[in-house]
Amino acid sequence: MISVDEALAHLFSLVAPLDTEEVPLQQASGRVMSADAVARRDQPPFAASAMDGYAVASDAVRPGARFTVIGEAAAGHGFGGEVGKDQAVRIFTGAPVPAGTDRVVIQEDVIRDGDSITLADALDDNAYVRPAGGDFRVGDRMEAPRILGPADIALLASMNIPAVTVRRKPRVALISTGDELVMPGDKPGPDQIIASNTFGLKAMLDGIGAEARILPIARDTRASLIAAFDLATGSDLVITIGGASVGDHDLVGDVAAELGMERAFYKVRMRPGKPLMAGRMGEAAMIGLPGNPVSAMVCGKVFVAPMIRAMLGLGAERAPLLTARLAHDLPQGGPREHYMRARLDDGVIAPDTRQDSSLLSVLAGANALMIRPVDDAPRKAGDLIEYLPL
Amino acid sequence: MISVDEALAHLFSLVAPLDTEEVPLQQASGRVMSADAVARRDQPPFAASAMDGYAVASDAVRPGARFTVIGEAAAGHGFGGEVGKDQAVRIFTGAPVPAGTDRVVIQEDVIRDGDSITLADALDDNAYVRPAGGDFRVGDRMEAPRILGPADIALLASMNIPAVTVRRKPRVALISTGDELVMPGDKPGPDQIIASNTFGLKAMLDGIGAEARILPIARDTRASLIAAFDLATGSDLVITIGGASVGDHDLVGDVAAELGMERAFYKVRMRPGKPLMAGRMGEAAMIGLPGNPVSAMVCGKVFVAPMIRAMLGLGAERAPLLTARLAHDLPQGGPREHYMRARLDDGVIAPDTRQDSSLLSVLAGANALMIRPVDDAPRKAGDLIEYLPL
Repeated sequence: MISVDEALAHLFSLVAPLDTEEVPLQQASGRVMSADAVARRDQPPFAASAMDGYAVASDAVRPGARFTVIGEAAAGHGFGGEVGKDQAVRIFTGAPVPAGTDRVVIQEDVIRDGDSITLADALDDNAYVRPAGGDFRVGDRMEAPRILGPADIALLASMNIPAVTVRRKPRVALISTGDELVMPGDKPGPDQIIASNTFGLKAMLDGIGAEARILPIARDTRASLIAAFDLATGSDLVITIGGASVGDHDLVGDVAAELGMERAFYKVRMRPGKPLMAGRMGEAAMIGLPGNPVSAMVCGKVFVAPMIRAMLGLGAERAPLLTARLAHDLPQGGPREHYMRARLDDGVIAPDTRQDSSLLSVLAGANALMIRPVDDAPRKAGDLIEYLPL
Repeated sequence: MISVDEALAHLFSLVAPLDTEEVPLQQASGRVMSADAVARRDQPPFAASAMDGYAVASDAVRPGARFTVIGEAAAGHGFGGEVGKDQAVRIFTGAPVPAGTDRVVIQEDVIRDGDSITLADALDDNAYVRPAGGDFRVGDRMEAPRILGPADIALLASMNIPAVTVRRKPRVALISTGDELVMPGDKPGPDQIIASNTFGLKAMLDGIGAEARILPIARDTRASLIAAFDLATGSDLVITIGGASVGDHDLVGDVAAELGMERAFYKVRMRPGKPLMAGRMGEAAMIGLPGNPVSAMVCGKVFVAPMIRAMLGLGAERAPLLTARLAHDLPQGGPREHYMRARLDDGVIAPDTRQDSSLLSVLAGANALMIRPVDDAPRKAGDLIEYLPL
């Protein structure tokens, strides 16, 4: 058996960052920017007022000082002239600070009488001027790779970048295999169950930036599997679920090998999800996941999601683990790395009492996979333990 | 001035849960399920093998016992007959456990010789049988409202639910106002800047389940604002950004009032984002946000996101706050609830040294809004403090 890290190293060797495409900024949220974005201007492009008030020369400011108001500066409409020492310009937030002035006295600190203003007795020290380039300057960079969030999108807009270069979305084909499966909405026979893994995995992988397709269920025949692989043509990653164990029914591996896959089987020292199959088939990477619903979803999180991130140019690395405090003591752990379905509430984590890998209801009630390393020593309540958020 | 909670109470009074629609399961991830889903079957629908091995009667199991193999049960293809005490059936994971058997001896514990098997000397206690209905039973419910995640989607599939009832996505119109703005990609005049708020807000609101549209920038004229509001027709929520302060340029409120909005102005005891305008205009709720980029995004998080959640039927509640430990001491806080741009790393939070509400670069570098309550006492490094994740 190999470790989770060794299995991941094999899987990363099957994929590479995909090519890139340009998307309009409005469609870039959640995408992975693949080339640095470079600011095309200073922000603000001019010294700008931070408040509504009156722009004056700072060395003329003192309690009770009087100024003549000679004009107005609003956002988008600056004051064109030069302002003298005893003069002021009515100014609004975001407007350029006029030549000859370097301070904004807020309107609350001013008494206005016709064209003249008198400053109050108590003035604060703040100039209320945002310097030109205070947010960013021409040439400042937002560095790639970066998963673009809402604030990034706003910042890119502000830099005057209407379109960004991002990694193409990995195209993923999902193939459930097995005579026991029917699609949701169909009527199962007495020995059959409903296909669920492809639905859960599609939601998971689409959510991290892939474009997953659920293919028709492949039956346990050569012809049906060949037809399914054929439909997967054009994908970057082909995922089969079920049929990859070492049992007598390992048709998936045989057919994939026939179709040219250089395959490898991995027994991974983990729970759930021991058996994996992986290889390359033509232009695509292929991975075979176990058919147990929870195993498939855990392997999706532990193995497939990092492959997707690698294809998106985010590096070939295990998903970063977080830590939380244990709710209660745990006995000695087992010989395999255990991904336990757990509830995390306010920094305290408790594994569910039911860890059978067939229980989707337990997985749906969990919000974290708590990880016990191989041969983990007994743990005490309050100990820090690692987890993956779900 | 009113508190953030008082402002939210006003805003919640403007919205209600939207009507519902049915979507196929493949498109339901991230949507808000609005009616309980009820399992249409037991899972597993029969007692099923948890391993590859041999199904036998448990009371015939002892070290060295011999059985005659009379058939095979695979997933999707059960064994039809009855199994006697000295008989066994070859069984694979997921197959129905045949009548007359209640235990699976794993293949590693069996020596097979033609049609007969002999059990090993050391056997574990596990029956390796998953009871019928062990995951869920007919009539078991997934309760609404619920934001559907990948494991929920898998569980719904398994329950044989091909489509789910969800809230319609709130339609949001985003209107930037101001003569100082141009769209990204356009060439700004000397006193102009690039519109960024609508782009950041669209990404934020789409990300929590809305369907936001960026309308053309409204200029500081009646005609331009009327045209923008006209384009917003059919929206559930109209958001204007800028032009809502109490200054001389409050055209937005005047035009909205002309168009029938019962408006209210709120000065909220918070930083950034003091001024808000809100009301109802025809079929839509309307909210006017401050034009400063960081203020607009913070108000999006603190006010608009909870309105969206209320429209999605998730309740009229403030976003739940999380807690982290302060990285360093903080002096006495101010008279307004302060949403500070901060970095959270491994449970420790540190506010950025630059908190000016114009700095998008600081917001894009932050991953949390750290919250200091009104008149917050000085804090020590290591104290717990509340935050909103970004």
